[in-house]
Amino acid sequence: MLHFDSDYMEGAHPMVMRRLCETNLEQTVGYGCDEYTKQAKQKVKEAIGMPDAEVHFLVGGTQTNATVIDGLLRPHEGVLAAETAHINVHESGAIEASGHKVLTLPQHTGKVLASEVEKYITDFYRDETYEHMVAPGMLYISHPTEYGTLYSLDELTALSNVCRKANIPLYLDGARLGYGLAAQGTDVTLKDVARLCDVFYIGGTKVGALFGEAVVATRPGILPHFFPLIKQHGALLAKGRLLGIQFDTLFTDNLYQTIASHAITQAMKLKQAFVEKGYRLFIDSFTNQQFVVMPNEQIDRLMQHATFELWGPRGETETVVRFVTSWATTDEAIDELIERL
Amino acid sequence: MLHFDSDYMEGAHPMVMRRLCETNLEQTVGYGCDEYTKQAKQKVKEAIGMPDAEVHFLVGGTQTNATVIDGLLRPHEGVLAAETAHINVHESGAIEASGHKVLTLPQHTGKVLASEVEKYITDFYRDETYEHMVAPGMLYISHPTEYGTLYSLDELTALSNVCRKANIPLYLDGARLGYGLAAQGTDVTLKDVARLCDVFYIGGTKVGALFGEAVVATRPGILPHFFPLIKQHGALLAKGRLLGIQFDTLFTDNLYQTIASHAITQAMKLKQAFVEKGYRLFIDSFTNQQFVVMPNEQIDRLMQHATFELWGPRGETETVVRFVTSWATTDEAIDELIERL
Amino acid sequence: MLHFDSDYMEGAHPMVMRRLCETNLEQTVGYGCDEYTKQAKQKVKEAIGMPDAEVHFLVGGTQTNATVIDGLLRPHEGVLAAETAHINVHESGAIEASGHKVLTLPQHTGKVLASEVEKYITDFYRDETYEHMVAPGMLYISHPTEYGTLYSLDELTALSNVCRKANIPLYLDGARLGYGLAAQGTDVTLKDVARLCDVFYIGGTKVGALFGEAVVATRPGILPHFFPLIKQHGALLAKGRLLGIQFDTLFTDNLYQTIASHAITQAMKLKQAFVEKGYRLFIDSFTNQQFVVMPNEQIDRLMQHATFELWGPRGETETVVRFVTSWATTDEAIDELIERL
Amino acid sequence: MLHFDSDYMEGAHPMVMRRLCETNLEQTVGYGCDEYTKQAKQKVKEAIGMPDAEVHFLVGGTQTNATVIDGLLRPHEGVLAAETAHINVHESGAIEASGHKVLTLPQHTGKVLASEVEKYITDFYRDETYEHMVAPGMLYISHPTEYGTLYSLDELTALSNVCRKANIPLYLDGARLGYGLAAQGTDVTLKDVARLCDVFYIGGTKVGALFGEAVVATRPGILPHFFPLIKQHGALLAKGRLLGIQFDTLFTDNLYQTIASHAITQAMKLKQAFVEKGYRLFIDSFTNQQFVVMPNEQIDRLMQHATFELWGPRGETETVVRFVTSWATTDEAIDELIERL
Repeated sequence: MLHFDSDYMEGAHPMVMRRLCETNLEQTVGYGCDEYTKQAKQKVKEAIGMPDAEVHFLVGGTQTNATVIDGLLRPHEGVLAAETAHINVHESGAIEASGHKVLTLPQHTGKVLASEVEKYITDFYRDETYEHMVAPGMLYISHPTEYGTLYSLDELTALSNVCRKANIPLYLDGARLGYGLAAQGTDVTLKDVARLCDVFYIGGTKVGALFGEAVVATRPGILPHFFPLIKQHGALLAKGRLLGIQFDTLFTDNLYQTIASHAITQAMKLKQAFVEKGYRLFIDSFTNQQFVVMPNEQIDRLMQHATFELWGPRGETETVVRFVTSWATTDEAIDELIERL
Repeated sequence: MLHFDSDYMEGAHPMVMRRLCETNLEQTVGYGCDEYTKQAKQKVKEAIGMPDAEVHFLVGGTQTNATVIDGLLRPHEGVLAAETAHINVHESGAIEASGHKVLTLPQHTGKVLASEVEKYITDFYRDETYEHMVAPGMLYISHPTEYGTLYSLDELTALSNVCRKANIPLYLDGARLGYGLAAQGTDVTLKDVARLCDVFYIGGTKVGALFGEAVVATRPGILPHFFPLIKQHGALLAKGRLLGIQFDTLFTDNLYQTIASHAITQAMKLKQAFVEKGYRLFIDSFTNQQFVVMPNEQIDRLMQHATFELWGPRGETETVVRFVTSWATTDEAIDELIERL
Repeated sequence: MLHFDSDYMEGAHPMVMRRLCETNLEQTVGYGCDEYTKQAKQKVKEAIGMPDAEVHFLVGGTQTNATVIDGLLRPHEGVLAAETAHINVHESGAIEASGHKVLTLPQHTGKVLASEVEKYITDFYRDETYEHMVAPGMLYISHPTEYGTLYSLDELTALSNVCRKANIPLYLDGARLGYGLAAQGTDVTLKDVARLCDVFYIGGTKVGALFGEAVVATRPGILPHFFPLIKQHGALLAKGRLLGIQFDTLFTDNLYQTIASHAITQAMKLKQAFVEKGYRLFIDSFTNQQFVVMPNEQIDRLMQHATFELWGPRGETETVVRFVTSWATTDEAIDELIERL
Repeated sequence: MLHFDSDYMEGAHPMVMRRLCETNLEQTVGYGCDEYTKQAKQKVKEAIGMPDAEVHFLVGGTQTNATVIDGLLRPHEGVLAAETAHINVHESGAIEASGHKVLTLPQHTGKVLASEVEKYITDFYRDETYEHMVAPGMLYISHPTEYGTLYSLDELTALSNVCRKANIPLYLDGARLGYGLAAQGTDVTLKDVARLCDVFYIGGTKVGALFGEAVVATRPGILPHFFPLIKQHGALLAKGRLLGIQFDTLFTDNLYQTIASHAITQAMKLKQAFVEKGYRLFIDSFTNQQFVVMPNEQIDRLMQHATFELWGPRGETETVVRFVTSWATTDEAIDELIERL
């Protein structure tokens, strides 16, 4: 059986696992105050070229989003996001559970438009009753998005400009950031992300770690008192060094980049195969998530050999399906899947 | 340098680590729907002798407490707990952040008295203005407590009876449950805990796992819709099998029990040494946390060779200090520490 | 200057005011435990023909919505509502502030369709990832809606059936319920509302009271422990009798109905005048809110003599405007406005 | 029957009621944007001698406390208060419901000591684990306290100094502020309160209004975006002018002060009678709440003629009881009660 359901089906990259084993019986202080964590933070700051940035390691994506957003908003504010945003759909109301509304914007294959963000803010403050409504206090975007799409440098710059003009922080959910940075044809680098966003996170869970997300606050003071907030959100790992060791490993010798590129290579092989075999791409994705329209018969046949996700409800005769590659996807698996298509 | 600061200074027990490595490149579905997790749940249910219990695996203690308490209380209710309870002191307001008040009871070396719980509840409903106050909706206890002390079977039974009579759930925080069950002279077994509590958790983080806590709901329906609540609290691990594999290992061949007993053996050696060398025990603890009163001079001298915690503020001439052993504490470390005393 | 901005521009109906003055120096216990409040509850129960209903008096609409919704939902649940619902737009995030998401449905002149509610619920539970999403835990509707429109008896019955089949409560926001019940051509009575909804509120603030909303829980036990929840939400009036006296007066001798009918009569005169003078109705409303499309020039001219609301942003050449009548709208004001049109 | 249960048993002072009647049919805009409210704010600012202060009118005490505290704290912070503070005991968890912990201090007849506040803060930041605990983010005091006691000018100054040194706001709950300012022998004036506190409220509900509390933010910017927060907390009155008119009346011709003095005069007569008749004062109160120890027999006898509160549980042979006077307490009632003693 082949598995293309998601990019979190394996454990960690073997290098990460090796370092966890090598250090396993060492004794360190808890809660991320250890040397491994300090070193990992240093490497992340070097990778983004920002010595003054603040880096925090959390365990998973939903808790990271909830904690960061809670740290960035005042009680009367909400977070702008695409209607398809993970925080709006698939986090069981974690944002609302800490008291904040998700203010939805139209999505364009998962992305928001700078012009629509700007219009939302302008219209909001033009409305005489705006103090009876939830104020747009920040913008949330994901890169890649939930649809595997990417912002261009121009688009990201435009969003950043709109946010800075409106004096609200721009927060980028990078659960799959590695795959976005390694994508074919992207003109957005990690340093661009750091320069244009106020806060973002570098996803580890889906890109080589057992678990872990690295939150980067690009300006000192933008996430004040973030440590107790991490604790309050139940997101503080007792053995914090586990996060430090993993990110230290991922940010040594370009490992993060290398393994992300591998996933993209595999995804592009798959995409090419889809096109060559005459399937219609639902989205022309350049990242590790591939969406394709497939006849139901073919889906049923393929499901005897491979697992993958139906994207939305099953259609009458054909359905959108999603195939996901990862740092761990082997050539054999790709070749066999292509053969089965 | 010797380290006796806490019981979460190392990684995982080597057997746990080995299983994580062996399974590392296997592919499984996420969020704890995998076979390892099912198997681990089964083993926990067998260990407590309750086939109908529900078991959930979460990552850490604070998030477990916050999620369980949120699941057990209605909005107008609060949680009764000793004033020294971890949820009242050291969780950065995680309980309040989900809207619930901690209703404090006097502590007796970290424990609450059944009679005082009963009096609180009786007095509460006798007060004519009780609907203006937060109703006692559940009782939180820790076993061992934050002071390393243990409830006797009689005490635990009395608490259980008071709660059942008042129709409120009894929740036991078992962050160090293994060390409690392995303690010298305790008459409380795991099956007693399961029989007398409504919900409890078996701590993994401090007893051999990299991380992880096993929540047991001993009656079906007492924690309804707990899965989305775990997600909402940011406590759902994407690679849920990591928790399953760890608890599966810990609950195979009595590993959990065996390694906890080791910590107790080491702690008892230490305690005996303290007594023999004339130190005054601050608490006569039978678990892996030992509290002793030490002259400040001796503390300063010892700190050149070992790390340990001051328990409360430094006194004029002497101070209470805490030494913690764990599954990983070696004979060499104990012997050297004893020699240094 | 004529005022048609809203239906809460005056104080209370003179009969209400008189009763408040007559009872002003009487001494009663607080918090709604007085005889006036008991009597008012009795009269409301008689008016809806449900002796077992529970009635609670709160001060304002937003607090009523937030408190009732908090009482009806479990933490993992959200409230279904039209995207234009007051709770989604104009309550400053009060619902989210108590931890719950508003799950939006398409609006049809302010109304939701039973078929779309049913589809939402069906699709939700069909989605394999539904436990990662906020569960639809109740339905919120307003009657009249924010657009002055009304559900027909068939529509309301269909919504009630969908909710009962899905086992979620139906909650009706009756901020302007009086005007809805008195509307021309409606086939929905107060008893229908009580029979088809699980909880609803009878608005006082906009229909003759200084302030006050009467929450009706039509089944015992559906809003358990609601008193402490009212207190917790800051919605408990110390001098609770002020609410009792007002609702007692409004529900004596059909006053609530009579004064609501007066507002409808005035609104219909206005509507007829709009039509006769060739204005295009934006919505064909049969309640006390009238929406009409007006050339901007005419708006500017009219604004020298009358106040009213622009409904949405000003258009290029014409704009939707809203005129609201109330129990207090005089014949003179209506005649003069019509003359000015 | 005589009533001494509380100071909110009547409606409003006749002057207040008269103004509400006189203005009843006037039309004004809602939500406190009317001229009466502006004028009332102006008068409050004049009374405290602070033209730059910001004044907001809310409906009741619990909602005022919850909204102000939510506005003053960041998510990781809690509010310091006496263990007997109204927010800690009698607000059904309203503070926790908006996510904040009440950090309790010892009470001294309802008051907190500056030295103990200072020690709490100092100890907190000295604790190495302080980032795992809820930070003291503000201080709440009541004046008069729940026990009718008052801070002296020295005590209030000391508290203010401690707070300013620690850079946390001092908030004073003035539910009965009028009675505090009018108390015999007090050296604290309204201007002192305004000068020494960061935020406080002037209680209307218990001092002559039907309802209403005037929040004063003595420094611009200390309660930013407070309007949407009032709305979010369900504390925004649609007909906001009702609050404006009441406070305008109370702050015209010293009415607030005059009627508060009346209550004190009556309370002092009562106190003198208690003393003369040999009762033991439980607290030597100089405000409108009088606490006295009374034999149970005498309580039972007196209860046939008067209502008053038992303060705490009934004792074996004697019990503490509370008698409350108000602006409305007549000479006849006092004389009759004294006669019955």
